[in-house]
Amino acid sequence: MALLTRLTGPRDLDGLTPEQLEQLAQEIRTFLIESVARTGGHLGPNLGVVELSIALHRVFDSPADSILWDTGHQSYVHKLLTGRQDFSRLRAKGGLSGYPSRAESPHDIIENSHASTVLGWADGLAKANQLRGRDQHVVAVTGDGALTGGMAWEALNNIAAAKDRPLVIVVNDNERSYSPTIGGLANHLATLRTTEGYERFLARGKEMLNRTPVVGKPLYDTLHGAKKGLKDVIAPQGMFEDLGLKYVGPIDGHDIGALESALKSAKRFGGPVIVHCITEKGRGYQPARDDEADQFHAVGVIHPDTGLPVAAPGADWTSVFGEEIVKLGREREDIVAITAAMLRPVGLQAFAEEFPDRVYDVGIAEQHGAVSAAGLATGGLHPVFAVYATFLNRAFDQLLMDVALHKCGVTFVLDRAGVTGSDGASHNGMWDMSILQVVPGLRIAAPRDAEEVRRQLREAVQVSDAPTVVRYSKGSVGKNVPALGTVGGMDVLRYAGSDRPDVLLVSIGALAPVALETAALLERQGITTTVVDPRWVKPVDAALPGLAAEHRVVVTVEDNSRAAGVGSSIAQALRDADVDIPLRDFGIPERFLDHASRAEILGEIGLTAPDIARRVTGLVARLDGRLDAATAGA
Amino acid sequence: MALLTRLTGPRDLDGLTPEQLEQLAQEIRTFLIESVARTGGHLGPNLGVVELSIALHRVFDSPADSILWDTGHQSYVHKLLTGRQDFSRLRAKGGLSGYPSRAESPHDIIENSHASTVLGWADGLAKANQLRGRDQHVVAVTGDGALTGGMAWEALNNIAAAKDRPLVIVVNDNERSYSPTIGGLANHLATLRTTEGYERFLARGKEMLNRTPVVGKPLYDTLHGAKKGLKDVIAPQGMFEDLGLKYVGPIDGHDIGALESALKSAKRFGGPVIVHCITEKGRGYQPARDDEADQFHAVGVIHPDTGLPVAAPGADWTSVFGEEIVKLGREREDIVAITAAMLRPVGLQAFAEEFPDRVYDVGIAEQHGAVSAAGLATGGLHPVFAVYATFLNRAFDQLLMDVALHKCGVTFVLDRAGVTGSDGASHNGMWDMSILQVVPGLRIAAPRDAEEVRRQLREAVQVSDAPTVVRYSKGSVGKNVPALGTVGGMDVLRYAGSDRPDVLLVSIGALAPVALETAALLERQGITTTVVDPRWVKPVDAALPGLAAEHRVVVTVEDNSRAAGVGSSIAQALRDADVDIPLRDFGIPERFLDHASRAEILGEIGLTAPDIARRVTGLVARLDGRLDAATAGA
Repeated sequence: MALLTRLTGPRDLDGLTPEQLEQLAQEIRTFLIESVARTGGHLGPNLGVVELSIALHRVFDSPADSILWDTGHQSYVHKLLTGRQDFSRLRAKGGLSGYPSRAESPHDIIENSHASTVLGWADGLAKANQLRGRDQHVVAVTGDGALTGGMAWEALNNIAAAKDRPLVIVVNDNERSYSPTIGGLANHLATLRTTEGYERFLARGKEMLNRTPVVGKPLYDTLHGAKKGLKDVIAPQGMFEDLGLKYVGPIDGHDIGALESALKSAKRFGGPVIVHCITEKGRGYQPARDDEADQFHAVGVIHPDTGLPVAAPGADWTSVFGEEIVKLGREREDIVAITAAMLRPVGLQAFAEEFPDRVYDVGIAEQHGAVSAAGLATGGLHPVFAVYATFLNRAFDQLLMDVALHKCGVTFVLDRAGVTGSDGASHNGMWDMSILQVVPGLRIAAPRDAEEVRRQLREAVQVSDAPTVVRYSKGSVGKNVPALGTVGGMDVLRYAGSDRPDVLLVSIGALAPVALETAALLERQGITTTVVDPRWVKPVDAALPGLAAEHRVVVTVEDNSRAAGVGSSIAQALRDADVDIPLRDFGIPERFLDHASRAEILGEIGLTAPDIARRVTGLVARLDGRLDAATAGA
Repeated sequence: MALLTRLTGPRDLDGLTPEQLEQLAQEIRTFLIESVARTGGHLGPNLGVVELSIALHRVFDSPADSILWDTGHQSYVHKLLTGRQDFSRLRAKGGLSGYPSRAESPHDIIENSHASTVLGWADGLAKANQLRGRDQHVVAVTGDGALTGGMAWEALNNIAAAKDRPLVIVVNDNERSYSPTIGGLANHLATLRTTEGYERFLARGKEMLNRTPVVGKPLYDTLHGAKKGLKDVIAPQGMFEDLGLKYVGPIDGHDIGALESALKSAKRFGGPVIVHCITEKGRGYQPARDDEADQFHAVGVIHPDTGLPVAAPGADWTSVFGEEIVKLGREREDIVAITAAMLRPVGLQAFAEEFPDRVYDVGIAEQHGAVSAAGLATGGLHPVFAVYATFLNRAFDQLLMDVALHKCGVTFVLDRAGVTGSDGASHNGMWDMSILQVVPGLRIAAPRDAEEVRRQLREAVQVSDAPTVVRYSKGSVGKNVPALGTVGGMDVLRYAGSDRPDVLLVSIGALAPVALETAALLERQGITTTVVDPRWVKPVDAALPGLAAEHRVVVTVEDNSRAAGVGSSIAQALRDADVDIPLRDFGIPERFLDHASRAEILGEIGLTAPDIARRVTGLVARLDGRLDAATAGA
């Protein structure tokens, strides 16, 4: 690490020789493999962009020039080159973020982890530079996968409209940003990669070879040798041409010299240019390269030599869903599955293997996932769209207008709902139960354990005239929490053991153990508590107001934003039933959450049994006081 | 109307001769001009698709074949051809919807009025047909403008991935679906239209002319004469080719014979095909053709001969904004404006005329509007994105993740917020104040009158480290409602005139007159009422809980979904402050609203002073009873 550890910032790259740059790249790869193995993180994508990151920081002068990363999980090398080399607490509380972070460095601009955003940001920054007369460059690094998102198209269309507004778009084409890239665009990129452009490129290489004999060298060197010809390669190309965008490439994304030549050409061009780089995800790490299924996209803690997990994970929410949807697929031919470039992460791998014709990977295109589901449902099928809760935000309009307005029977399975932790602010699935409150006819299930995931998924796919949502947490699912009885459609998890109990504690989803522990703590204070799990949190169970009226106080606990959350909707249901008893709602406060473990975050925001019990005890004491005062005054 | 009135359904078209079809087209144009002049509606777009609609219904067998319209406002001719000829109450309560409506006809499938959805629906329907082994056709009619939306791209990318799944995409290219179409795509279509494709087409026409001499005829006939050559025209073309989509065109969209030939070719093809038709918006109606500014896209009631409005409209919310943003533009160079293909409807025309370099029309691309605003703000400008409230749903993720998470100073101006009425379910702007509750740091202004629009817009553009929203209604703005005083940041619109008033009535935005009338009605029942307008409804004003505690009951009135609305957030603020007095929230119930006038809908959903006063009177009586009972019991 002789070179890497000496780097204090990108300008230290200026004096390095080509050989030193190669050595630096090797040092960075070694560092990444050893470091990410210890902490977990996005390994494969970052191994693919080592040379690209170096070349970008040599050609452009960050932060005066803006280098934007989409998706941000490919920014580890950028972090190393901009003075951030302590990866020991990557994605852990107080350590480096797994994405760019403006709090960490002025070299970071977009800290968003949602894909396909970078071109839109770049368009805005380039417009601002133009309007302000600033001679600064904007470089947007995007991937082949991210280009499948509609935002990327909207941005390309706008960028292409202004031919005199400089903007360098680097397409980092590794043939599979998450899963193998989907659709017509992927085919087009493959064509550029394998035929016309590439062959023209090779032909140029050969011409040069004729002049400077380097016989027998592999493709890598051939391409490398061609770099001097690159200044002529800025040329219209296929669909990008049709949009009015100039195109440079394809470039060997592991050849620093070739990359620098291409980027310098693009920088000089004076208008929007696409630089198409071919990289290998997992480059230089054999376990990652061998991994057809792309498991090294993001890893937990692994052994660096073998790439195998250090500790085997327990049963998780995703795999419970993954098993049940296969069973449902066997029982019902009309069930089809949809994923937005996340087949394996959302648990649809087994379904896809058994029913290859009944699974649709739409690319990073959540809008299309939802609207095409409306079409599928109208065509007589029952689509199950499995997606991370945070990414559903992209499909809100389609869920509301296309699915719900048209009364389509579509099941949305929201994985990674609630506090997820280490991925930081933008990966927490904490908005879904709030924004979905407005959707007429929608039903939302928040299963509390594995058995409930299976049961509620089955209930959801029975609904043929409205959308349903089943949302569950990230990670280990824990033990089943048995129901002791039911009231209406709600499960009673604990009876208060009193004729006039104090507290009705409404437990939502995975927080059932927290709710039960809270009740136990309250009991010690002499506060009698009923715990119910409504199972379906929207609409509010018709029996809830009546049950609430038998208690003095209602407390709701949810792993979702307090703002507009389930607690608020229950409060409204009580008001509508003229049940005017005090209610307190516990959930996630209205702020973005820094990365940390889920347990750390729940502790920080007071979503723990001791915190909740303490506050409820205070409320009950206050009510006792008021009651005493009222009695005294009467 | 000899032919039109005899039509009972699309199969009646089968026996008509080419001359009769021409006559029918003429009858339909006459009908549309006379009828829409009386009722108001989308005139220009429907005049453009008369021949296209006829040709579609002759070549395809609706409803067995699915004909999908994007955007639905171009479906009037389709309605006429499918047995719906009573346009006398178009867009009025109980009359025909201005969009396709499944309640009206089995020929209607998508009743969504949000643009760019049709290709996604078509992909889903085509997948369902394939999986179910159904030999039915799916035809998606979209516009050049709708193709600028990201959803369209996501769908094209997916459609192109399956070369054996039949799907006919008709691009109705009128060069400006709303405003002149924006961006690289528009340029590409223009190229297809004016050079390569068109010239090749003309060349074919000329070849035919050489064989069948028709000298001196205009372009229309020349193109018409070329129709027999069309079977060969299915050919790869530019960017569509790169995506793997076959392309037919360009076709004269007013030549029924040419259209039928092209559509038949496309129908036979067996895979996804794009049929590119060139149409004239406003075809056959001189006032519309003369109208460069596209005012005939949608019209109110007009005189059919002149195209001039029958009654001059009063000052509306939009024009108040439009004037103020120009003044702000003069005062501050850093203010820039963004519109998503709605420059004039959102009131930015004057701004664009005075500051042409400082307005960005991004196309029908709300996601890009928001994310590029984040870039502009990061680049030191203050973007004002003016958009219909209902269309903000498309940009929710970008507002949350790109703008709010990055603490960008962006002002979102939401026009047509609340109940809008005649456009039906999908145009009501009734979700914004609910879904935006979760956005950390966001501030929402709901101005009650013209003066407040000006004042709150000025307050909004002062905020440089967070997004703000200013939302107002559709239509006439009414008289200013003066503040009598303030409490915290809130305006007091009415003092109760009592030391211990009964009701605190919280009035949101345009409902201030309703709130004041409610208070007057309550007064007659002896119920003393304070009326406040919080002005900024998010965050809840810090002084609100204290003021509430001086009353017995809090009532909130908002022109927004009750679910997760401002009432709910005020209720939460009261709980958080331990102010446990009864609250009742009035707003829009959780359902989709059929088209009718705004006043009719407000009456239907009980958002009127008499309704609210009656319910509040009941509540107060109940509280009095309870208080009596409690006193009696003590």
